[in-house]
Amino acid sequence: MFREKLLKDMEFIIELDKMKSIFRKTHIIGEDRYEDDAQHSWHISIMAMILSEYTNEKIDLLKVIKMLLAHDLVEIYAGDVFCYDEQGYIDNKEKEIAAAEKIFGILDHEKADELRSLWDEFEEMKTHESIFANSMDRLQPMLNNYKNNGGTWQEYDVSKSDIYKRIEPVKHSSDELWCYVNYMIEDAFQKGLINKR
Amino acid sequence: MFREKLLKDMEFIIELDKMKSIFRKTHIIGEDRYEDDAQHSWHISIMAMILSEYTNEKIDLLKVIKMLLAHDLVEIYAGDVFCYDEQGYIDNKEKEIAAAEKIFGILDHEKADELRSLWDEFEEMKTHESIFANSMDRLQPMLNNYKNNGGTWQEYDVSKSDIYKRIEPVKHSSDELWCYVNYMIEDAFQKGLINKR
Repeated sequence: MFREKLLKDMEFIIELDKMKSIFRKTHIIGEDRYEDDAQHSWHISIMAMILSEYTNEKIDLLKVIKMLLAHDLVEIYAGDVFCYDEQGYIDNKEKEIAAAEKIFGILDHEKADELRSLWDEFEEMKTHESIFANSMDRLQPMLNNYKNNGGTWQEYDVSKSDIYKRIEPVKHSSDELWCYVNYMIEDAFQKGLINKR
Repeated sequence: MFREKLLKDMEFIIELDKMKSIFRKTHIIGEDRYEDDAQHSWHISIMAMILSEYTNEKIDLLKVIKMLLAHDLVEIYAGDVFCYDEQGYIDNKEKEIAAAEKIFGILDHEKADELRSLWDEFEEMKTHESIFANSMDRLQPMLNNYKNNGGTWQEYDVSKSDIYKRIEPVKHSSDELWCYVNYMIEDAFQKGLINKR
């Protein structure tokens, strides 16, 4: 026989399918389609696997990947807010906390607590793992914009200083990645992919 | 400064964006859209994280998740073959091996070797980790079909015995999950979501 909690796990897994319909502001490279939260979460998880060797401090990669796989689940109910919309971010925090209670609440309390704690750690960005996880979350849309002739940097007229502010976690997680990020942003700027002010 | 191999990693990460445009035969729950490889790979990776407690044998969860994040990358060049198309599977093996060399070959040899070895292990399905990983890969589309009134089971007139054959790795990885799978398939059959022969 299977236990009641396995049914809860299955209900949760089925609910997660909705991540495939939460669209973000980033375009898939070379396509008009926007990427969704499931695609994004996969991309940054495999990025963490590829780039973890460059961190300044030793990190627990399994914890980072668990965090990345689960960090956007609250958006199933709270929706996606554009990363350069600061007021939207503040207004959305309460909605996200309610969403976290709803989505993780499908699970039995032990698993719910683990996922909630991973999400809190990601949001607080104080540990080496969460700073690196946030670095992956922020770097991936930048790579897409870089390859998409500026992408949302152009569409929403994002300034170079806002881009640097957004990508700052990389500075605190990896000297080598930070060096690459600088090169990429300056190259994008030189090529006119980021607007001059 | 950053090293040459970091540029290779970035080229690889950018190439992976194509996974978001490799469409599978499974529908997103309640939608006409087909899911793609990036969405599917995310879904089964988080499933592994939720369901690993039910395995009969102790497994290395990080290895399982790495395998799942990377197992479909060959489809960027080899395409997706429907899981119930046995001849297509056989014909495609050579294409997949060439694709593996091409995609992993973007990376420096150490990382290429790690990814190739994870893919080989997944395909050979001999270790506890790869049997569990294959279980996740096969269970997720079944859950979607179950919630989609039969989904591709109906569209392609798949028989109950073919479904049982496809899901067999679960039998070898987890008694409790196997019990759930039996319940689900029989329930789907009773409800007419799988055609009677």
